[in-house]
Amino acid sequence: MAGVIRFDQHPSETLRVGDGFSLSDVDPDSTPGYSGTKEDGRLLLADMDDELTELQEKLFAESRFGGRKRILLILQAMDTAGKGGIVKHVMAAMDPQGVQFKAFKAPTDEEKSYDFLWRIEKEVPAAGMVGVFDRSHYEDVLIHRVHGWASPDEIKRRYAAIREFEDRLTDSGTKVVKVMLHISGKEQKERLLARLDNPEKHWKYNRGDLDERAFWEDYMNAYQSAIEETSTPDAPWHVVPANKKWYARIAVQQLLLGALEDLHLEWPKAEFDVPTERELILRS
Amino acid sequence: MAGVIRFDQHPSETLRVGDGFSLSDVDPDSTPGYSGTKEDGRLLLADMDDELTELQEKLFAESRFGGRKRILLILQAMDTAGKGGIVKHVMAAMDPQGVQFKAFKAPTDEEKSYDFLWRIEKEVPAAGMVGVFDRSHYEDVLIHRVHGWASPDEIKRRYAAIREFEDRLTDSGTKVVKVMLHISGKEQKERLLARLDNPEKHWKYNRGDLDERAFWEDYMNAYQSAIEETSTPDAPWHVVPANKKWYARIAVQQLLLGALEDLHLEWPKAEFDVPTERELILRS
Repeated sequence: MAGVIRFDQHPSETLRVGDGFSLSDVDPDSTPGYSGTKEDGRLLLADMDDELTELQEKLFAESRFGGRKRILLILQAMDTAGKGGIVKHVMAAMDPQGVQFKAFKAPTDEEKSYDFLWRIEKEVPAAGMVGVFDRSHYEDVLIHRVHGWASPDEIKRRYAAIREFEDRLTDSGTKVVKVMLHISGKEQKERLLARLDNPEKHWKYNRGDLDERAFWEDYMNAYQSAIEETSTPDAPWHVVPANKKWYARIAVQQLLLGALEDLHLEWPKAEFDVPTERELILRS
Repeated sequence: MAGVIRFDQHPSETLRVGDGFSLSDVDPDSTPGYSGTKEDGRLLLADMDDELTELQEKLFAESRFGGRKRILLILQAMDTAGKGGIVKHVMAAMDPQGVQFKAFKAPTDEEKSYDFLWRIEKEVPAAGMVGVFDRSHYEDVLIHRVHGWASPDEIKRRYAAIREFEDRLTDSGTKVVKVMLHISGKEQKERLLARLDNPEKHWKYNRGDLDERAFWEDYMNAYQSAIEETSTPDAPWHVVPANKKWYARIAVQQLLLGALEDLHLEWPKAEFDVPTERELILRS
C-alpha cells in the first residue's frame, strides 16, 4: 500500500543480540529502525497481514508434501510486557490451522519430576506450523536463578542443554525466533495500575506479579546472562523495546516475516497431470 | 455499525435441524434469514469481530477463576465445502490463545486399535477455550457407512455412543455447536476445477476427493441418518447452505456468537481490595 511507512532497517538486524550486548543499554522507549508514528505502525501492521498469511500458507503447503520446515517463536518478558498482545494482534492474522500456541505455566508435579526440557519437547511445533511459546524453557534459567531454585552449576548446565536442544530444533527444520519484550520498571507500574482502573481487566491482575516486580534487577541480570549464553548464530535473541506496544507488534511481525522469508518457501508443484485430472472431474 | 445488514432471523433458529428434517429439501444456494448481498455479508462478518473477541475473552477469563464453560464447534462437510475458509475467516478474528483447533485425518494404526471416541476424547477443548473440530467422530458414521467399513449394527451402536459422549460434554460445561456445510455436487465440481486452474492451489488437489465424489448420494444418505440420529436438544445439528461461501461464514459466525451468548458470561469480580493493591503498586 502506498503511503505506509516501513522500517528503515530490518529488526532482524537492529534488534539482534550481538557481541558485547548489554541489556541495560537498550532503551525500552525507543523504536529502532522505525521513524513512523503509532498510527503509521498500526497501518503497517495491517498492511503486512496478507503477506504473513500467504507465507504461512506456503509453509503449511510444503509440509503436506514432505517439507520439514517450521517456525518456533519464543516470547519471554516481564509481566505486563505485552506477550498476549503480540499473540492477539500479530498472530491473529494467521490461519489458526497453522498456528500451534502453547503457554507454559508453573510446572506440575509430574513435569517437575523430569528434566526441565521434557515438557517443552512435547510442544515443539509440527512440520508446516508456526509455533508460539508464551514463556518457555527459559523460565528455568530466569525465575529459577532469581529465586535460587537451581544452583549456579545447574543453571550453567541448563544453558548448555538449551543450546543443544535448540541446535536439534534447527537441524530438524525449525527456524527458532527468540524474542524478549523489554519494558521499563516504570512502565510496568503504570500497566499494573491500569489493570486496577478497569474492572474488565481485574481478572488479569495477580498479586504474584507484584512479588516478582520486587526482584526487577535480579531478573535483568538473569536475562542478560541467559541472552549471552544462549544467543547462537542459528538461534539468536532479539531484544524488542516494548514500552510502546505498537512498536513491539510491528517489530515482532517483521521478525516473523523475515524468518518465513529465510525459509525460501515455494508452492508445491503438481504431482499429477492437470489435463487428465480436469477430464476426470468433468466426467464425474 | 450503521448501515450493516443483519440477519432477519437468527441462524440458530432457521438452520437448526428439527423434526421431519430432510437434507434434500435444503437448497445449497439459499441464504436463509439473510436478505443482504455478498458485500453486505462481508461487512457484517467484519462488524461482528469485536463482539466475538470480547465474548471469547470473557469465556477465557471465567475459566481462570474456576469456570468450566467452553465451546466445541464441530465442522463436517463434503470436500471443498469450505471448512478451512470458516476457520480462516471466522475463527481468525479470535485470540489464538483461546482457540483449540484440531483436524482429524484418517486414523493411525494406534488410533484404530481403540474405540472410535478414544482419539476424540483427547482433543476436547479445555475450560475457557473455543474448540474447533475439522472433521470429527462423525467420520465414523459417514465414510464408514458409505464404504461399509462398519456393519449397520455397529453404526447404530456408534450413534448411541455419540449421543452419550456429547451429553457428557454438555454436562461438563461444553456448548456443542454442530455444523454441516452443505454444497451441491455441481458446486463441488466447479471448485475442484478451480483448484486445477490455479497453480497456487494445486497442493490442495487430491485425487481421493474425486473418488469420494462418486459416492455423493450415499454420503447424503449417511448425513441424513447421522443428523437424525444425533440431533439432541442440547447438541442439535445445523445445516448451513454453503454454495455461497460468504453466507456460510456469516451464518457460522452467528451460530458461534449465539452459543457464546447462551453461556451468559460475566467478567470475573476482583477477589482483592482495589485501593490496597493500588497502594502496594505505588510503593513498589
